[in-house]
Amino acid sequence: MLKLYGGARSRASIVQWYLEELGVPYEFVLLDMQAGEHRNPAFLALNPIGKVPIIQDGDFVLSESGAILLYLAQKYDPSYPSAPEQQAELYQWVLFANATLGPGVFVETSREKEAPVLLGPLSDRLQHHPYILGTSFTVADVALGSMLAYIPLMLKLDLSPYPGVVAYITHLTERPAYKKAMSGRGK
Amino acid sequence: MLKLYGGARSRASIVQWYLEELGVPYEFVLLDMQAGEHRNPAFLALNPIGKVPIIQDGDFVLSESGAILLYLAQKYDPSYPSAPEQQAELYQWVLFANATLGPGVFVETSREKEAPVLLGPLSDRLQHHPYILGTSFTVADVALGSMLAYIPLMLKLDLSPYPGVVAYITHLTERPAYKKAMSGRGK
Repeated sequence: MLKLYGGARSRASIVQWYLEELGVPYEFVLLDMQAGEHRNPAFLALNPIGKVPIIQDGDFVLSESGAILLYLAQKYDPSYPSAPEQQAELYQWVLFANATLGPGVFVETSREKEAPVLLGPLSDRLQHHPYILGTSFTVADVALGSMLAYIPLMLKLDLSPYPGVVAYITHLTERPAYKKAMSGRGK
Repeated sequence: MLKLYGGARSRASIVQWYLEELGVPYEFVLLDMQAGEHRNPAFLALNPIGKVPIIQDGDFVLSESGAILLYLAQKYDPSYPSAPEQQAELYQWVLFANATLGPGVFVETSREKEAPVLLGPLSDRLQHHPYILGTSFTVADVALGSMLAYIPLMLKLDLSPYPGVVAYITHLTERPAYKKAMSGRGK
């Protein structure tokens, strides 16, 4: 069975949400990060950088939540697109979520400048579509939605100027798979 | 012809390096970022978030340097792997470069803690292989190598504890395609 390694409060929840959406059976291997279990030799043998989440799918080990999402989409989502352009749009939103939005709003020194630049256009777009790529839920929503859903949980950032973002967070966090991953974290 | 939009000092250089490696003809559309050309309506119509780089390949517009690299690899690299696991390793290193390494070492508040965590294992790995995935140059080296090569250019961070990283930077930045992209930036 696919194993997902993560901490109780880690980006493993993002991967877990997507595994729940896909209905892929998995075992959650909970590491006690406060006790430094991610720095133990057994874990470093799987990921020398000692970051979570990682997955182990058979003999294959993969790190980076965004890469894991894309791998799972490609392997387990029956509606994964075949056109390179459509695949690239998924790459784009996963990279945007993890490399642009995350550092932009969660790094305190960039937040004030970046939040309107990033969240304004996102809000406009999300007011016209229920999902970031239009009418279908995709892995792009897992990457983007989980990063956006962290904002009200972790930051004092007024989202009221971005009603499309607020509606999107509400809509996604009501999904049973999201709730299961977030409430069952570590179980 | 494929168009690459970027500023004189922007991540467009990363994409330009890879286009040079692939031998894909392209036009570099230089935006005067200091004059705010990336916030002009013409550019915002292509990318509402107003970030560079973007590419326009026929009618297809794509943003996020990491996503652009992966798209170009898939479309134009004849040795792009067909196995999902090998593709996922490319995703992993692109995500690592842009979402973990970049924010880890270029955000001042995290640098001291993250630099050894990230650069130590990378250095060990790179002392045993010329490229991050072994004996072949791949898109993963473009993503990882360009981010690493920014360190001595932009930061006061002593790389001497990481000889594998130093050798890798030296090795990659001697490639003609790298030199052409960096020296011809904006031409």
